[in-house]
Amino acid sequence: MSGVEILGYTAGTLTTLTFLPQVIKTLKEKSAKDVSLAMFLIAATNQILWIFYDVLQRDNAIIFTNATILVLSLTMIFLKLKYGR
Amino acid sequence: MSGVEILGYTAGTLTTLTFLPQVIKTLKEKSAKDVSLAMFLIAATNQILWIFYDVLQRDNAIIFTNATILVLSLTMIFLKLKYGR
Repeated sequence: MSGVEILGYTAGTLTTLTFLPQVIKTLKEKSAKDVSLAMFLIAATNQILWIFYDVLQRDNAIIFTNATILVLSLTMIFLKLKYGR
Repeated sequence: MSGVEILGYTAGTLTTLTFLPQVIKTLKEKSAKDVSLAMFLIAATNQILWIFYDVLQRDNAIIFTNATILVLSLTMIFLKLKYGR
């Protein structure tokens, strides 16, 4: 595997995990007043578009990445609605 | 331009704007207690990796996208440190 590929896979993995700390923090503290609902609505919509794009491009590896981010985004939307007031 | 390309550019634009609502909300409300600092540290680190990757792949279009997300991530890190306590 080349250096560029390693860099790409590392960045791809980080991309997948970006929302995870916010999900964990919100689950722990049960507070999301300061968290932007619009951000996660955009993120979720965006992941759905990327998944369509990946399906059309038959790029299964990235479908998994985007599906994971979609699940994290939907989780944050649920947590924001539950703890956000 | 094909349907797939339009889908890709739309998703790319949404990706670029994802953090914008959180930046605006935090600037307005001057409160970021519930926002995860770790999320934006990962996001910023991630964008730096993607920019290196894009430079190596000579993909200028995506460099701009990732640089924009990096600026938004760094802005949120600054705002979280300023209003997050």
